[in-house]
Amino acid sequence: MADLGLSFDNPLFKQFAFYSGVVIVKTMSMSVLTALNRIRNNAFANPEDYAIAKAMDKDFKPTSPNPTVERIRRCHLNDLENVITFVLIGLLYVSSGPDPATAVTYFRVFTGCRLLHTIAYVGQLPQPSRALLFFGGLAVSMLMAVDVLRKASY
Amino acid sequence: MADLGLSFDNPLFKQFAFYSGVVIVKTMSMSVLTALNRIRNNAFANPEDYAIAKAMDKDFKPTSPNPTVERIRRCHLNDLENVITFVLIGLLYVSSGPDPATAVTYFRVFTGCRLLHTIAYVGQLPQPSRALLFFGGLAVSMLMAVDVLRKASY
Amino acid sequence: MADLGLSFDNPLFKQFAFYSGVVIVKTMSMSVLTALNRIRNNAFANPEDYAIAKAMDKDFKPTSPNPTVERIRRCHLNDLENVITFVLIGLLYVSSGPDPATAVTYFRVFTGCRLLHTIAYVGQLPQPSRALLFFGGLAVSMLMAVDVLRKASY
Repeated sequence: MADLGLSFDNPLFKQFAFYSGVVIVKTMSMSVLTALNRIRNNAFANPEDYAIAKAMDKDFKPTSPNPTVERIRRCHLNDLENVITFVLIGLLYVSSGPDPATAVTYFRVFTGCRLLHTIAYVGQLPQPSRALLFFGGLAVSMLMAVDVLRKASY
Repeated sequence: MADLGLSFDNPLFKQFAFYSGVVIVKTMSMSVLTALNRIRNNAFANPEDYAIAKAMDKDFKPTSPNPTVERIRRCHLNDLENVITFVLIGLLYVSSGPDPATAVTYFRVFTGCRLLHTIAYVGQLPQPSRALLFFGGLAVSMLMAVDVLRKASY
Repeated sequence: MADLGLSFDNPLFKQFAFYSGVVIVKTMSMSVLTALNRIRNNAFANPEDYAIAKAMDKDFKPTSPNPTVERIRRCHLNDLENVITFVLIGLLYVSSGPDPATAVTYFRVFTGCRLLHTIAYVGQLPQPSRALLFFGGLAVSMLMAVDVLRKASY
């Protein structure tokens, strides 16, 4: 039987860790992008944030909500909804002992879809580009989930 | 000592994978429900989404925010807050070698509460139905968390 | 080779489970804090919530959105963005066989930053206290992610 353990001794888990690491770093970097755009656009969410901005710049003019900040936050929330469920269902999927070639294909398609999804979202590319990339990623997670449920049922 | 490993060779992990799979699929399906209701109600979040809707239908009238879409999104966010924390704390809980009968009861109560919670939320059932189902699920996660913290402390 | 398994037989995983348990419980408790403040401030999100509040108190006056409730919800969302990514990347990090002393330092710094972050957010402490605690936690997750990606690449 193949090594199903969740450790770097398992080559498939190591691949999963790599692609999961990439999409998690992408998700976390949305926080930094939000912070940068809040500062650049003087668009904050809390009174205490405005207080320090005003203390540092007398001519400070608050402008919240800012369309760019709100767009990045929607993209971030979309990542939370999709990347985190991918990593969780992926952990269960890797533990179920799947076909390694299929599994790695799933990880790559998902990672590609989500990286391009961010470009389409932040870059405001014409639809249906973003919708197709979104459903591509979701389809991978759903296929893994079906496999997990099927194997866990008997 | 019982097999505490996170693989399908561990019968308890296999059960955990099944119930986690069910609630993760339920959470992911909220994305699809949101998309369908955005299209049905002409309620989108981005200008580029309106552009394609208008290109496909000359008589298109935007109507955002839409109450049904916003309700589904609140239900989805509630899932993110509760289902994802359940799966994470559940992974740690299964690794701690709990009593299998207690553990499976927890998984079933949580899964039942969250499936009914969605019905109560999307179906607008009178309160306190939704509140009780919410706290039922949260109580399971908290009980597992207390057990993890207790066992991890010594 | 050290035991890299994700079970309580692995002392580093046990430590990870403890600190993850603490920050997950903190995140889940934001749900309870939101519910309490919704009731205290008569600030609900759904018509059926207002219906029961009105049935229980004839003089009920709805006041949504409420600044305290919205602040707690922003803090909760910030936890979802940061705590969940920490636990996921931490699981991969522990599986990669890191130096235990470094790892435990990371877990402690992250947990300290996030507990203080909540105090700074809910207590409305002057900036940049909250921003520094936020970036402290994010830096730990990023360092772990870089280590995971580096080890998973060869």
